[in-house]
Amino acid sequence: MRILHTADWHIGRTLAGFDLLPVQQRSFAALRQVAHDEHVDGVIIAGDLYDRGLAAESAVNTVNSMLRTLNREDGLPLLVISGNHDSAPRLATGSEWFSSTKFYLHTRLAEAFEPVTLGDTQFFLLPYFEPAMARAYFEDDNLTNIAAAMAPVIDRMVAQFAPDKRHVLVAHFFAAGSTHSGSETPVNVGGLDAVPLDLLAPFDYVALGHLHNRHAVNADRIQYAGSLVKFDVSETEQRKGVYILDTETMTRKFIEIPQTPDFIHIRGSFAEIMDPDFYHQVATDSFVQITLTDTEVIPDLMIQLRQVYPYCTGVDRAHGVQTSVTDKPVDRHLDPMALLAQFYADTNGTELTSEQRQWAQQALADVQ
Amino acid sequence: MRILHTADWHIGRTLAGFDLLPVQQRSFAALRQVAHDEHVDGVIIAGDLYDRGLAAESAVNTVNSMLRTLNREDGLPLLVISGNHDSAPRLATGSEWFSSTKFYLHTRLAEAFEPVTLGDTQFFLLPYFEPAMARAYFEDDNLTNIAAAMAPVIDRMVAQFAPDKRHVLVAHFFAAGSTHSGSETPVNVGGLDAVPLDLLAPFDYVALGHLHNRHAVNADRIQYAGSLVKFDVSETEQRKGVYILDTETMTRKFIEIPQTPDFIHIRGSFAEIMDPDFYHQVATDSFVQITLTDTEVIPDLMIQLRQVYPYCTGVDRAHGVQTSVTDKPVDRHLDPMALLAQFYADTNGTELTSEQRQWAQQALADVQ
Repeated sequence: MRILHTADWHIGRTLAGFDLLPVQQRSFAALRQVAHDEHVDGVIIAGDLYDRGLAAESAVNTVNSMLRTLNREDGLPLLVISGNHDSAPRLATGSEWFSSTKFYLHTRLAEAFEPVTLGDTQFFLLPYFEPAMARAYFEDDNLTNIAAAMAPVIDRMVAQFAPDKRHVLVAHFFAAGSTHSGSETPVNVGGLDAVPLDLLAPFDYVALGHLHNRHAVNADRIQYAGSLVKFDVSETEQRKGVYILDTETMTRKFIEIPQTPDFIHIRGSFAEIMDPDFYHQVATDSFVQITLTDTEVIPDLMIQLRQVYPYCTGVDRAHGVQTSVTDKPVDRHLDPMALLAQFYADTNGTELTSEQRQWAQQALADVQ
Repeated sequence: MRILHTADWHIGRTLAGFDLLPVQQRSFAALRQVAHDEHVDGVIIAGDLYDRGLAAESAVNTVNSMLRTLNREDGLPLLVISGNHDSAPRLATGSEWFSSTKFYLHTRLAEAFEPVTLGDTQFFLLPYFEPAMARAYFEDDNLTNIAAAMAPVIDRMVAQFAPDKRHVLVAHFFAAGSTHSGSETPVNVGGLDAVPLDLLAPFDYVALGHLHNRHAVNADRIQYAGSLVKFDVSETEQRKGVYILDTETMTRKFIEIPQTPDFIHIRGSFAEIMDPDFYHQVATDSFVQITLTDTEVIPDLMIQLRQVYPYCTGVDRAHGVQTSVTDKPVDRHLDPMALLAQFYADTNGTELTSEQRQWAQQALADVQ
């Protein structure tokens, strides 16, 4: 049996003010094509379908449509859990009906212990949970962290193991020893909030979500799918995609999902990167992070950059910014008009015109 | 065939700071008992299941649980539309799966024209919609209001009529000539936003939601179910409940749903209503609106009242409030400490003690 493993869709996310929905829809279309081409028998989505518990209606429409497409149009069994970015009660809406078409959605800890059997494999769908939920469920006040809480969770799953089946855990947590990247929520990512890898030994494969880099954990049978799209300039060099797991051999392969637009990082002086000879060589319709080697102030910088690089996500300076203003001591005893005139002259190299001076005086008077 | 008609649950609503969820859950339990006792063959919910499009997780859990109970535990077909208080995309989550158990949920105008046939009746489930949606759907820019938009909507439904069936419209709008009460959102309730009754003539019965008083419209075949619970002191005298529609005879009966707590309105002086001889005769665990006949200021009024009437929703005064402060002109030139001292003396009849004066001076100094 061949199962596609994906996670961390984060539908509804934005990047530097850009709506990622069209990007995510293209990546989803590519995922769907992979599922078709690879003749998969089911799809694991290991949490964080949404970026926010209180998702916008457009995000709700998108997730609903994606799940409907895979399950009802393409007839694929779905194995889905809620992640820490999902609202479990909201995501759970309709879940009692979904299993009629082999769409298995678990959002509560109690649901984790009822395996879903497809073909040769038992799937245990463990949603993201807080230690307090485990304390209530197991009636054990000692389960004060995820590492402690996970032990009885795994024990209870192992008690359900059918000996003639493979055993796959689908979960959303921080596996001990993982590395993390800039686009993840920086909470619960270490120490006692990490799950020790040896606890996961009973499983033939652990299909994880939570970390956005598929290389985050270095263990053969324990894999993060990584996010479906890049979320942050720190992920520029990562390859995003999905795993295809073969449950017979318990081997997997990674299939890359093209990023449109992709992320690129360019570096140079303002004059260089705004030169057509330069930017005609660049995929300017990418998400572009720019490192400027100039040090001077450039007026309307982002407006100018986005005329060439419409999806510019941000600018940093290789050598900082030197302004005559910051070099000079500011005489804080000057009145606001004099300060403004000095600032204008320092940054523009020319004096205020009499018309500009009049506007500025009027504006200052209005403020006061 | 016998169909229960309810509407306007508004799950998630509060009243004077009180969570109505327990009240709504008790009313729902009573509704469920009515459905059982009356051997109904289905349940119409004519919109506004939620009070807000962005409902709290507790409200989402409650609505999900109610729908699951009626449809999956009790095996009742459900005929449900979204109202103006529902988020159509959020409510629609899972709807493609629901019809597998005869749960029909329509949230988009396009879905209104595909009748649901149960027994001897075609049900047309018309969700709440804005004129702009009708303009887009019919590609007709002249549909600038609900009255205009409803004509082609009804025409398209009539074209689907099976001649050997009854025809019931389930909808959520303001029917022309209706009266409305204090708990409804005061928008779109008149003029061109009202649906003329003669447009509804083709139907054997029109099961409406939107207005919270079941007597809002005076037409035999066109009925508001009214809200399931009272939402406002203006509804104290209303009886809340559900209709049972007999589709063979097209007759209906109203079955009252008890309100626990109910609303009451009491009137008297503070001394009278706080006298045990009085309040032992009163259902003090009701939502109590109080009209005081006193005119003087009563310190900590609500705190005192709620010791006897824990669900006091509000207090009004039959004859206004007379205070020595409001009778006297305030000398606005006094400094804050002097103003405070004067206010204290006016309202309490005694001067500030030296300790109080010291506290007040310190507090004023802190503020400044």
